[in-house]
Amino acid sequence: MADVDRAHRVVVIGGGFGGLYAAKALSRADLRVTLVDRRNFHLFQPLLYQIATGGTSPGDICSPLRSVLGKNRNTRVWQAEVTGIDAGRREAVLADGRIAYDTLIVAAGSHHHYFGHDEWAPHAPGLKTVEDAIDIRRRIFTAFEKAERAASPEERRAWLTFAIVGGGPTGVELAGAIAELSRFTLARDFKEIDTRETRIVLIEAMDRILPPYPASLSRKAEASLARLGVAVATQTSVAAVDGEGVKTMSNGIEGRIDTRTVIWAAGVRASRLGRVLADAAGAELDRAGRVIVRGDLTIPSHPEIIVIGDLAHFRHGEGILPGTAPVAMQQGRYAARLVTDRIAGKTTPPFRYRNKGSLAVIGRNAAVADFGRVRLWGYPAWLAWVFVHIWYLIEFENKLIVMIQWAFDYLTRKRGARLITAEAPARTAADAVSPAGRVRS
Amino acid sequence: MADVDRAHRVVVIGGGFGGLYAAKALSRADLRVTLVDRRNFHLFQPLLYQIATGGTSPGDICSPLRSVLGKNRNTRVWQAEVTGIDAGRREAVLADGRIAYDTLIVAAGSHHHYFGHDEWAPHAPGLKTVEDAIDIRRRIFTAFEKAERAASPEERRAWLTFAIVGGGPTGVELAGAIAELSRFTLARDFKEIDTRETRIVLIEAMDRILPPYPASLSRKAEASLARLGVAVATQTSVAAVDGEGVKTMSNGIEGRIDTRTVIWAAGVRASRLGRVLADAAGAELDRAGRVIVRGDLTIPSHPEIIVIGDLAHFRHGEGILPGTAPVAMQQGRYAARLVTDRIAGKTTPPFRYRNKGSLAVIGRNAAVADFGRVRLWGYPAWLAWVFVHIWYLIEFENKLIVMIQWAFDYLTRKRGARLITAEAPARTAADAVSPAGRVRS
Repeated sequence: MADVDRAHRVVVIGGGFGGLYAAKALSRADLRVTLVDRRNFHLFQPLLYQIATGGTSPGDICSPLRSVLGKNRNTRVWQAEVTGIDAGRREAVLADGRIAYDTLIVAAGSHHHYFGHDEWAPHAPGLKTVEDAIDIRRRIFTAFEKAERAASPEERRAWLTFAIVGGGPTGVELAGAIAELSRFTLARDFKEIDTRETRIVLIEAMDRILPPYPASLSRKAEASLARLGVAVATQTSVAAVDGEGVKTMSNGIEGRIDTRTVIWAAGVRASRLGRVLADAAGAELDRAGRVIVRGDLTIPSHPEIIVIGDLAHFRHGEGILPGTAPVAMQQGRYAARLVTDRIAGKTTPPFRYRNKGSLAVIGRNAAVADFGRVRLWGYPAWLAWVFVHIWYLIEFENKLIVMIQWAFDYLTRKRGARLITAEAPARTAADAVSPAGRVRS
Repeated sequence: MADVDRAHRVVVIGGGFGGLYAAKALSRADLRVTLVDRRNFHLFQPLLYQIATGGTSPGDICSPLRSVLGKNRNTRVWQAEVTGIDAGRREAVLADGRIAYDTLIVAAGSHHHYFGHDEWAPHAPGLKTVEDAIDIRRRIFTAFEKAERAASPEERRAWLTFAIVGGGPTGVELAGAIAELSRFTLARDFKEIDTRETRIVLIEAMDRILPPYPASLSRKAEASLARLGVAVATQTSVAAVDGEGVKTMSNGIEGRIDTRTVIWAAGVRASRLGRVLADAAGAELDRAGRVIVRGDLTIPSHPEIIVIGDLAHFRHGEGILPGTAPVAMQQGRYAARLVTDRIAGKTTPPFRYRNKGSLAVIGRNAAVADFGRVRLWGYPAWLAWVFVHIWYLIEFENKLIVMIQWAFDYLTRKRGARLITAEAPARTAADAVSPAGRVRS
């Protein structure tokens, strides 16, 4: 233990893909790692839309960080909130203390963003955390309940209309899943409404959905969505959102969608820790608040501070690397290598991203996949999507259960997790009509 | 449809075991059923303690009411809150409307109760709803996180102490599950603490735990708990609960348990709808707020109002029927028969409870089972418990997944659902250290 106490201290902020892969890659190094996260679990974010649409439960796609890192003898996990960084003393400032580092790896991610219209937030929740997903799930399933008991056809129509803002992968996945839900899963469950009449509008400001994909795949995705009954409104931007619907603007023409359910899948902004790094360590930020890093992912003034994942602005060709899981994973592994190379006195070549492809899923049987020269769509792309996601899920824990559940849901089209749970836990003795009583068998 | 409109209208309040079994039993009758519940799902409450201790996810033990009743063509489901009953006009008053009935089946259940000490509620949450379970889960797993980073041995000890008030089945199950968790599941996960030193105290005012069971089984259960390291404090009552611990009273001696986590499994009180029935329909209540029903489960002044489940006070031998799932199920089926018999002009004999036995589980391999002449404990009782619960779970939906998950957890002792989620959903753009960023693969 004396050795460990004198060992190089690495502090990793954030237990997402970037931070977790950095910590995992350091598991056998002769140093001391502390992973700090506000949450006690890693969230497999590519499947978050499945929680939001009742297809899976949080427990199935979240892994306790302590389980994932439990075997790493050089690693401890702290559940704590990082409030600042003291770059001079090399300490991360926590809400309840401080922690010293020799190397700091910042992987604090990003959150959704309303482009200066925070007043839209209550009406158009974004999908970033488990709580966001449960909130959206509550809204979606409540909308069908309200439609069933609506007083007028107009009200019914508004409850049966869903607007999704942003035609990136998250927006496409949500639109596809809600369409599946309304066309198949719920089709028999209601008596007063025909859920198959549900109107789903996907709003995208650019001239096509999935802008980072090749144009041919965007068209395939639009066709798949159209088959599911999703109306795709491209070249359409959002002018306002309120409790009654969305005001749109398309080629100078004002439009309006009367809807009670709007989901925000449009903007993303880097974590507040970007600002902290700018103030405390002279880091330079881009317009989205990301930290502009050097070729080795460090910041110029402080080579002992490494920034990875969504929080990092890394030049790649003409643009910058996107905020995706594969980028974060590769940067996490690179950060680990940089630390061990430095201790060993070796030089590390600059980070290079290896693009293994992009995938977006549309409902039950369709997806689009861009593997560079190979492009897939429809059923083959969907199979590729399932394979890749299961592959990464099992890497964390034996999440075999998710696979079985998917197989089962696929055969039955059921969505067992479509629960409307309360906004806040009922802490006091709950009253009135609750599921009947104290049960015991 | 004209026939249906003139059909006898049955309104069922509550989608727990009582209400759901009543609705299911009426599925083929020539009448019109409306099931009203605040929630859109049925909760399999005997496994709620599994959510609270991270063993399973809400989606695995909750079934959407619309799925369960979807095939019943004469039944509709309303998600609504019942605020009153207009017995004269035969209408249930909802928060957002009214609904007329010819027969009303009230199965509104019960909630936990602090015997006039509502100020204890924030410090000692009870376990009745999914939100309660998630709140308790958050507290349990946060306690270990806080212990890991405690500033003093005293603070550490307080975080590693759990007090459970009430030695009924819920208290016993919670104590057993927390003991398993600390002794096995988490044993390797923390670096600063040894979770096996966790102190678990089960407090019971009577002279033995599981008072409704035969004394021999209570002793077996105490021995099983002791083997897991649970301290059982019988003949001990709670004098006060605050943020620092529990003040106890045992044979006139004042005691104190320093703990940051207290769980309330002691008192139960009938739903507020009991009071509503007393005011609106002259129903007589007992001290716990239950409605005293006649032999056919109706109330004297209004034979068209049937009360079942935890809300009903039904004489049975020298006592009254307990608030358990089997009682509620049997009363639900009886209520359905009473309605159809009446329409057919037949007389129905009074309700008679068939005791099929009681089961309580203690950790992973032990339980106690009282089947009247046959009494089981230890492993055989545990197998009986597993069998019975799976049997009832699959009756609702194909909850095969739960069975597979149990088998899996049993082999690995993992608890994948041990998430600490926030008290309220983060509705605005979440900030600071979140699981890293926008991910996409």
